[in-house]
Amino acid sequence: MMKKPLILIVNDDGIFAPGIRKLIKIMNDFGKVVVVAPDGPRSGMGHAITIEATIRCEKVIIDNGPQIEYSCSGTPVDCVKLAVNQILDTKPDLCVSGINHGSNSSINVIYSGTMSAAIEGAIEGIPSIGFSLLDYNNNADFSESEKYIREITKRVLENKLDSAFCINVNIPKSKLGKDLNGFKVCRQANANWEEEFEQRIDPKGRPYYWLTGKFVNYDEATDTDEWALDNHYVSVVPVQFDLTSYSTLSTVKSLLS
Amino acid sequence: MMKKPLILIVNDDGIFAPGIRKLIKIMNDFGKVVVVAPDGPRSGMGHAITIEATIRCEKVIIDNGPQIEYSCSGTPVDCVKLAVNQILDTKPDLCVSGINHGSNSSINVIYSGTMSAAIEGAIEGIPSIGFSLLDYNNNADFSESEKYIREITKRVLENKLDSAFCINVNIPKSKLGKDLNGFKVCRQANANWEEEFEQRIDPKGRPYYWLTGKFVNYDEATDTDEWALDNHYVSVVPVQFDLTSYSTLSTVKSLLS
Repeated sequence: MMKKPLILIVNDDGIFAPGIRKLIKIMNDFGKVVVVAPDGPRSGMGHAITIEATIRCEKVIIDNGPQIEYSCSGTPVDCVKLAVNQILDTKPDLCVSGINHGSNSSINVIYSGTMSAAIEGAIEGIPSIGFSLLDYNNNADFSESEKYIREITKRVLENKLDSAFCINVNIPKSKLGKDLNGFKVCRQANANWEEEFEQRIDPKGRPYYWLTGKFVNYDEATDTDEWALDNHYVSVVPVQFDLTSYSTLSTVKSLLS
Repeated sequence: MMKKPLILIVNDDGIFAPGIRKLIKIMNDFGKVVVVAPDGPRSGMGHAITIEATIRCEKVIIDNGPQIEYSCSGTPVDCVKLAVNQILDTKPDLCVSGINHGSNSSINVIYSGTMSAAIEGAIEGIPSIGFSLLDYNNNADFSESEKYIREITKRVLENKLDSAFCINVNIPKSKLGKDLNGFKVCRQANANWEEEFEQRIDPKGRPYYWLTGKFVNYDEATDTDEWALDNHYVSVVPVQFDLTSYSTLSTVKSLLS
């Protein structure tokens, strides 16, 4: 009999978020599950790590599933580092992050704690998947997502994948009477946020700001994650952590020669 | 007469760090300088943004230079977003981040607040440079760095560069009697941290952790930033923010077909 795979689960919405509770239920069918997740919301934490402060991490029981769980005071990336270097004796066969409440498509990959945790999994040599549902609602309906999460997990576990493997999976919000069109493997769209800071005045008369913004897609091509999601596909973008811009190496060489 | 370029300065060591004070002095010779920097240290913040909390940002005077300065309670990336979308009326001609106290070579680019601020500059359409000196000391000697920072700034300002232009510049620590060997344009080395969490017990008997680790370079090639720095060159790595792993698109397509 095959040894059960060891699956590490992390997220950025915190260990009590419905998205991670759903992901734990699904992953319990695939292997031995260990959860190391933040003790509360850590959205927009990107690849932050805790180096100037201490980290708490303690075993918790949240529901009666077979999974083992740890709640951590740190960032999503801290959770992965703690899992791999402190909590687990063997390297996980898979790291899954999510299910995020809200999109992590296109440029959001770089701000997302969910995706940064998956990327950290790949940096640590673990095939990793980040799952996001395009629904910010705390009561989001994950029922249609489940089929796709199961399918992709099965395929990743069955195949001998490169240790640097990391994919960013975004799932459109369910539409009544309209099934999803399946997977679309694509590239990150050229899209961005047009930000506005909302200035408010505190009770003492001093200004403070809230970051707000509008997401704008500049990319009209049909091979992008934004196109896939707009056309009711599950978008799958392979992600790398080598940030070298190889295409501009020669430009920079001539600039400095 | 050419209009003076508008230069935005940011860092992750905080607005009082000697590295940014030095960078401000240098940049005052190149253009109109606006500083928007964190009010204290934000090392290892990566691409974190503040979305669940409010941000403070206020004009400050720290020394009698011509620069205009703002101290911000947020992350390095928040500082860039605030500068571009709230503080400045026109888009800067250049965004410089640093001088970081310590290396941001190879994988460190992804954890670094300094480099994430530079990357955010490029995302916002501003040619951007992150500067780091391989010396964690608060009294680091920036005298040898200055020549290289001036040279690269001059060339970037003189050339019409793509708005997505971002470079990661690391400068070796001075060695008595040994000049730096010049610039080396290179790729990010395949290197990583082997982490260990140091467990301690608090006065109430509960455990807590400090992240510690050892940097390990797995890459023996001579075209990397680690090689350049080891051989006393200033390393220059062009950086991108499209995280799509184009080389594995076909693998993932066949995995899901």
